Amino acid sequence: MSKISKTITAEFGPNYKEAKIGDIVILAQDKPLLLDCGKEISSFPIAYKAYGTLNEDKSNAILICHGLTGDQYLIGTHPVTRKPGWWEDVVGEGKILDTNKYFIICSNVIGGCMGSFGPKCINPETGKPYNLDFPVVTISDMVRAQKLLIEYFGIEQLFAVIGGSMGGMLTLEWAAKYPECVYAAVPIATAAKHTAQNIAFHEIGRQAIKADPDWHGGNYIAHRTLPSKGLAVGRMMAHVTYLSESGLARKFGRGLQDKEKITYGFDTDFQVESYLLHQGRAFVNRFDPNSYLYITKAMDYFDLDADYGGMLANAFKNTKTRFCVISFSSDWLFPTSESKHVVHALNASVARVSFVEVDTDKGHDAFLLDEPEFWETLDGFMKGIAASRFEDNIRKDT
Amino acid sequence: MSKISKTITAEFGPNYKEAKIGDIVILAQDKPLLLDCGKEISSFPIAYKAYGTLNEDKSNAILICHGLTGDQYLIGTHPVTRKPGWWEDVVGEGKILDTNKYFIICSNVIGGCMGSFGPKCINPETGKPYNLDFPVVTISDMVRAQKLLIEYFGIEQLFAVIGGSMGGMLTLEWAAKYPECVYAAVPIATAAKHTAQNIAFHEIGRQAIKADPDWHGGNYIAHRTLPSKGLAVGRMMAHVTYLSESGLARKFGRGLQDKEKITYGFDTDFQVESYLLHQGRAFVNRFDPNSYLYITKAMDYFDLDADYGGMLANAFKNTKTRFCVISFSSDWLFPTSESKHVVHALNASVARVSFVEVDTDKGHDAFLLDEPEFWETLDGFMKGIAASRFEDNIRKDT
Repeated sequence: MSKISKTITAEFGPNYKEAKIGDIVILAQDKPLLLDCGKEISSFPIAYKAYGTLNEDKSNAILICHGLTGDQYLIGTHPVTRKPGWWEDVVGEGKILDTNKYFIICSNVIGGCMGSFGPKCINPETGKPYNLDFPVVTISDMVRAQKLLIEYFGIEQLFAVIGGSMGGMLTLEWAAKYPECVYAAVPIATAAKHTAQNIAFHEIGRQAIKADPDWHGGNYIAHRTLPSKGLAVGRMMAHVTYLSESGLARKFGRGLQDKEKITYGFDTDFQVESYLLHQGRAFVNRFDPNSYLYITKAMDYFDLDADYGGMLANAFKNTKTRFCVISFSSDWLFPTSESKHVVHALNASVARVSFVEVDTDKGHDAFLLDEPEFWETLDGFMKGIAASRFEDNIRKDT
Repeated sequence: MSKISKTITAEFGPNYKEAKIGDIVILAQDKPLLLDCGKEISSFPIAYKAYGTLNEDKSNAILICHGLTGDQYLIGTHPVTRKPGWWEDVVGEGKILDTNKYFIICSNVIGGCMGSFGPKCINPETGKPYNLDFPVVTISDMVRAQKLLIEYFGIEQLFAVIGGSMGGMLTLEWAAKYPECVYAAVPIATAAKHTAQNIAFHEIGRQAIKADPDWHGGNYIAHRTLPSKGLAVGRMMAHVTYLSESGLARKFGRGLQDKEKITYGFDTDFQVESYLLHQGRAFVNRFDPNSYLYITKAMDYFDLDADYGGMLANAFKNTKTRFCVISFSSDWLFPTSESKHVVHALNASVARVSFVEVDTDKGHDAFLLDEPEFWETLDGFMKGIAASRFEDNIRKDT
């Protein structure tokens, strides 16, 4: 594997300024990375995309952390789905996260399936995919791998770390573990620990995948099958949790799908059924079922409170990072109360923190959708930290 | 089938006072019942349990309507699960619904699987189970069948119709369709129509069952299989929706199951996972997967607003029924707003209605659990209507 890794590294070079879309870098080549589970990994690939240009003092880098089923393709056509990137509204030339100003990095998490080290990677010891032999990774492990990527770029401090949902967990972990590397942090629609209800929903998703005989105990690649029905059911359920009841009511209500009357049968009657079926089917074409198991488990394990002795404030002791915590009023998966818990801990740590609950009926997924109040909040914060960083620099120079 | 039906009828006789627990009666023997889907059914079985004694003027009958996966076994040992009945806390000698005073009837809905006419019944035309040839039934059809049962008992007016969740839908349907037959109605934790979110959750449950290859297009009995994995996944998901986040947090939080540390594996780490797996497994031993499809569909179709021209108040025009509408503060499946919608319609109809939102963290399932404030509310209402009925009788006599 180290041979392959060297080839890949050589191909893309250490010249990150010329980083192409969908680059892959091989990390931990000299020193293995110790995971929370006790295993070590080395020479593993991280797939990332970088947009914009890193400035000379490497002070304009923003790391964006994707959610559970997201990936590094923030903008442009996604190579698998052929759809636009997941944050086209926010990232790009002249956008809130302006690629003319910032060097924006987004990397696929370890455990993922878009090029980074994950369960479908080939295990060099067996020549076969890892599948369930892949080590169970944590949010903390994901961040450790990202730290290596940032070091690879030679970046000492990120101007900002930003992420929603699971990406928000990574953002909080970054701020807790590497405070000196994070000038500003924007955890969006997230929590410092996964709740019992959220663990429950994840476990059902995993059970749906495992219940599919095409899963074959995780060895579906060897069987040339895909547990697509189980994965689709898991995705459909998760998708409902990402929306709000009022949003669903506004969008679909009890509207019928391509018919005027109910059918008194088990075909699709309601638009909401048709929509969900589509969501389930589309998902299986882009996401690896085993990756779904690993990443949901990482989220379930996340408990920053417990990592800091049951006192979240300790996670942010003496932090200089500027925080902007954002929640959405109709998000019932990561409700505002979870964001407030983070804000209270930050307040107890006398951190610089602003908090906004955006009033919306778009639910948890609001950060991915057309939500101007959220954009204004993020834009305002980005302008604010740009100004304060400018002032900091003047102070340093004088 | 008519031959069998006569045998059964003869066995239990029309002498309902001697009705045994778990009786079965064959209804619509002389005249078929027209279903909403346009099909007619005749000589079909309804399984019920009756507790207490019907008084001479047949004025002390209470009909209790069960929820989606409930059945007629209110009290006593359930013949399948060997567990206590689902409303032991509320029904019985000296209980709120006192079997010394009231004649309490609970019948398995049509579409069900505890003895009433449902998809696992034998189709006399083929000699095989109906499976998906069973007609799609509605809440209205279920109530029509119950009406025949009440007529069989010779009861002209029920003292009360009471039900939670789907049972509340049946209660509302009773009050709307047969107002003169319902002295009092207690719809609990319910709604006049199923929301888009609830339809979505039901559709996912149905997809989970259908995704299981052991479902065999509904013909699992012939294949001697059971889509138990799919049904368990569906049940697990539904079960989460019956609880509240705060209830889950109080009961389980992030507590680990029989271990001190997380396992970094895919076995059960958290208590909430173990609890859900148990719920899923237990369910498949008592419930028919096709029945689950039919009954969820009936709930999805329920829309009393639409049945009355989009104006729910019309459903209760000039009603004399006394209503007690009860909701639970942490019920997010049938939130208080849905109950308030019913209450507003009743107010617009100048109906006699009391409304209570019980403050609890037990979620939708609170009506099945240890919830004293709910019991006090129900008890108070029952005493109130008993008194008003007594006064009505005095007025009649004078």
